Amino acid sequence: MFIAKEYITPSAQYLLNNNPLAKQAYTEVFESIKSIVTDQHSEFYINNTEKNGNGVVPIKEKCYIKLENDFLWFREKPLAYLKKEMKKGGPIDVYKEFFKDDQQLNVGLEFETGNISSAHRSMNKLAVGLKRKEIQLAILMMPIKQLSFYLTDRVSNYEELEPYFCIVEDNPYIIIGFDAEHYCDNVPFLPKGKDGMSHRSTRKWNKS
Amino acid sequence: MFIAKEYITPSAQYLLNNNPLAKQAYTEVFESIKSIVTDQHSEFYINNTEKNGNGVVPIKEKCYIKLENDFLWFREKPLAYLKKEMKKGGPIDVYKEFFKDDQQLNVGLEFETGNISSAHRSMNKLAVGLKRKEIQLAILMMPIKQLSFYLTDRVSNYEELEPYFCIVEDNPYIIIGFDAEHYCDNVPFLPKGKDGMSHRSTRKWNKS
Repeated sequence: MFIAKEYITPSAQYLLNNNPLAKQAYTEVFESIKSIVTDQHSEFYINNTEKNGNGVVPIKEKCYIKLENDFLWFREKPLAYLKKEMKKGGPIDVYKEFFKDDQQLNVGLEFETGNISSAHRSMNKLAVGLKRKEIQLAILMMPIKQLSFYLTDRVSNYEELEPYFCIVEDNPYIIIGFDAEHYCDNVPFLPKGKDGMSHRSTRKWNKS
Repeated sequence: MFIAKEYITPSAQYLLNNNPLAKQAYTEVFESIKSIVTDQHSEFYINNTEKNGNGVVPIKEKCYIKLENDFLWFREKPLAYLKKEMKKGGPIDVYKEFFKDDQQLNVGLEFETGNISSAHRSMNKLAVGLKRKEIQLAILMMPIKQLSFYLTDRVSNYEELEPYFCIVEDNPYIIIGFDAEHYCDNVPFLPKGKDGMSHRSTRKWNKS
């Protein structure tokens, strides 16, 4: 897969230009998206013979495996504000603390695979993390519209959420729309739900 | 019904204290919530003999009828930014332009009857209206948790969204949690969906 569309707020752009930790985080996410390839290929091929023909979870899994195994990101990081203070709300999907000298940068990432209203919740969860200073950079990933047409019914897409990007424009926020390199009729459909996903243990966040 | 819980951001509080148009808008919303009463009663009675036993639409309808008929609010006001610039996204549920001398204040309101992720979308739609300066005050209404237990399954509630209120704290935003005055076992359940709702023509926004 590759980054086809991208929204980078001014403060996120400033971080990418001036903070090596932010640059490193972005590179790791970029590499993880590039690592989403069809087996035995170096790029991604999506079967485009049927609307909603492919599951989205196998795509997310490939990205997460790279982030967890090669770049040591954690899964399911609870925000202290939500967990301890408000006592409700789920964890951030993927999270990593970057360190260099006396600098620290915490990055939260959500790979959105739900419908459009679920995408609003993901966007807002990262916004709470920024607001409460538990993360310093937020990254939201979703397929672009053209790709989502061939994925699970009602999976939200970049263009659909785009009118709302402006509400996070004052925060260090990056929203990524990814796409497949190739659309074709001779690769298998991606399985839906948990079908065909081999069980693996995730690198769950287990600190406070 | 009555306002049981309320979140008023500092800038909304400032408006309420200093701008008579904002004060008038709040009073009209307050009166509309008070007008949600059980037929032949002066307060609201909810049947609490069954979890999810009542529909939420009849509650919303009573509130909207008051806002539209007595206070001349409009329904379904498209945001120019969403409709003309982005060419996607639905209208704001209820809307009114208040005028006095050379002052104007546009107020947008959403009465949330969907699930929690839908509530995030409503919150964000009003936030876009504020960001784009098409409204100057946003009001979001939802039942409190105790009441929602007896309403349609998965209707979102004030407490559930509360952890996210902080992301709108810098905007003129009011979030209202309403509740019934009485919980009892001898009133009819409120019909669900459109059942039992008599058809009425709404005061739809028809300007540009």
